[in-house]
Amino acid sequence: MKIAIDGMGGDNAPVAVVQGAIDALKEYDNIELYITGPEELINAELEKYTYSKEKINVIDAKEVISPNEHPVMALRKKKDSSIVKALELVKDGVCDAIISGGSTGAFLAGCTLTIGRIKGVERPALAPIMPGRHGSFMIVDVGANVDCKPQFLMQFAKMGKIYYEKVFDVKNPSVGLINIGEEEEKGNELTKAAFKLLKEEKNINFKGNVEPREIPGGNTNVLVCDGFVGNTALKMYEGSASSILGIIKDEVLKSSITSKLGILLLKPVLKNCLKKFDYKEYGGAPFLGVNGICIKAHGSSDGKAFKNAIRQTKIFYEKRVLEDMKNEFCSEN
Amino acid sequence: MKIAIDGMGGDNAPVAVVQGAIDALKEYDNIELYITGPEELINAELEKYTYSKEKINVIDAKEVISPNEHPVMALRKKKDSSIVKALELVKDGVCDAIISGGSTGAFLAGCTLTIGRIKGVERPALAPIMPGRHGSFMIVDVGANVDCKPQFLMQFAKMGKIYYEKVFDVKNPSVGLINIGEEEEKGNELTKAAFKLLKEEKNINFKGNVEPREIPGGNTNVLVCDGFVGNTALKMYEGSASSILGIIKDEVLKSSITSKLGILLLKPVLKNCLKKFDYKEYGGAPFLGVNGICIKAHGSSDGKAFKNAIRQTKIFYEKRVLEDMKNEFCSEN
Repeated sequence: MKIAIDGMGGDNAPVAVVQGAIDALKEYDNIELYITGPEELINAELEKYTYSKEKINVIDAKEVISPNEHPVMALRKKKDSSIVKALELVKDGVCDAIISGGSTGAFLAGCTLTIGRIKGVERPALAPIMPGRHGSFMIVDVGANVDCKPQFLMQFAKMGKIYYEKVFDVKNPSVGLINIGEEEEKGNELTKAAFKLLKEEKNINFKGNVEPREIPGGNTNVLVCDGFVGNTALKMYEGSASSILGIIKDEVLKSSITSKLGILLLKPVLKNCLKKFDYKEYGGAPFLGVNGICIKAHGSSDGKAFKNAIRQTKIFYEKRVLEDMKNEFCSEN
Repeated sequence: MKIAIDGMGGDNAPVAVVQGAIDALKEYDNIELYITGPEELINAELEKYTYSKEKINVIDAKEVISPNEHPVMALRKKKDSSIVKALELVKDGVCDAIISGGSTGAFLAGCTLTIGRIKGVERPALAPIMPGRHGSFMIVDVGANVDCKPQFLMQFAKMGKIYYEKVFDVKNPSVGLINIGEEEEKGNELTKAAFKLLKEEKNINFKGNVEPREIPGGNTNVLVCDGFVGNTALKMYEGSASSILGIIKDEVLKSSITSKLGILLLKPVLKNCLKKFDYKEYGGAPFLGVNGICIKAHGSSDGKAFKNAIRQTKIFYEKRVLEDMKNEFCSEN
């Protein structure tokens, strides 16, 4: 398969992008990479490594879109940007997938405008996979759609189900609706209406409302909500983890020698815990519902994260997830 | 001051309520308590302690409203319930404040319907105080209003500011709008409109949008949002903390003797961390905007939590927070 990678997307680009690309080529078969960005810059990075030259193509793009720019305006103005060039590679059929660690807004808008939606999908949704205590969970959507209709959430559930089932090999994964109470009548206008729709859909293993308190346990595979709530849940999870580990650190620093020895002895355990929380292990977040394989890598991705995003893209492709989504929604029309 | 306490509210009622009441009497001056509930049950608990009889009044109430009942229907039907009796004590001017650890829905509806709103306040809001790494923060609202208008959020900011300033002695506390991006133009229709209102209000120390990732750091004192988002943030915080500590526990259990020794040595530190996260230290969540001092204690409150809710009620009263809120909003009419 051929994968387009936005060579300038992310805080550590292009260094981390090139490193991830090189590492991925070592580990995975049947991939060919197209890295977009200023030719001389990307080539200078590539020169640091030994690799099969025919597996990496550099596509020149002189401009870069930053996360602070207005997404749609920037896409229109900067035709020679690394992300626009990468999107065109997919649109023109040269590549089968795109990965970017750059501006989320530009990525989502670019995928929707350039690659387009799957026929029948009303709103594509960004759906990261996160580590929970008892398993990984996926939240659909975390920010592509801040104001939603109940029907959108129904489609999020269908898309999340297909992705989770195929990529994680989990038969009929459980689907929950993020809500502020367990009972059917709880919530706002959106969740009340979405609950009714989800309850009636026979092809969804709907577990009902899931209170945010239960999400990090990881007992529900796919969680649906509007993008504002999903983004809040995602960022609150990240923020809580960092704050809690920070509080432990603060306390250890002002504690006795004994406690400091304790933390030293605990180091291997804490390392394992941190690994469990390491988003780099998970690759990126698929943008579900667009008519292509589009993976948003974390803005702070390092080489390992980009390598894993490439692995994720390969699984997405080989398991034919996109075809299943198309089949699911074409019947709705 | 006279405080009405719902003797049957909470998972550990009436045992924990009575214990908290007795402990509060030992520590705090100038309080007189009215405990509502089945007379024989409450008296049987009280008989276990020695205390000044004139400081505690038992008000008979034979019924109990459970969290599973429809709030408004239950309030209407169960006139002889512990919460309705407690509400009436405030309404009739016998008591200055009410505390309940029972059904949140019944408490919010009961306070609004029986005690009423402050003139000028459109929607009262539930506003718990939570521990952050660098300080406590308050979220207004966490569930009383799941669908909000921008103007409500503006009022939440004003109420939160008054409470935080007076109760924590912080001059002009910082106020943030929970949003999925820092820039003014980010968010959904509600936050975009609320941002404009907040920015123009000179009496609010408005810090702009706060991403949920930043909330647990505790660098912003008062955070406003609709009740659905606030509830999600609150419960995600609770869930993350318990899941992260659970993951550490899981890892320690399957680890070497060395790591187990490490956790033993770290115990005092972890205890301090847990104490920092202990909601029982914080009392309950004030229901701001109603025309009375109304404190919602956590459903799983123990004696200590009820004692601290009583302390919180006393501060609310003595610092004349309610009077300041009335002054703030009467001028709006």
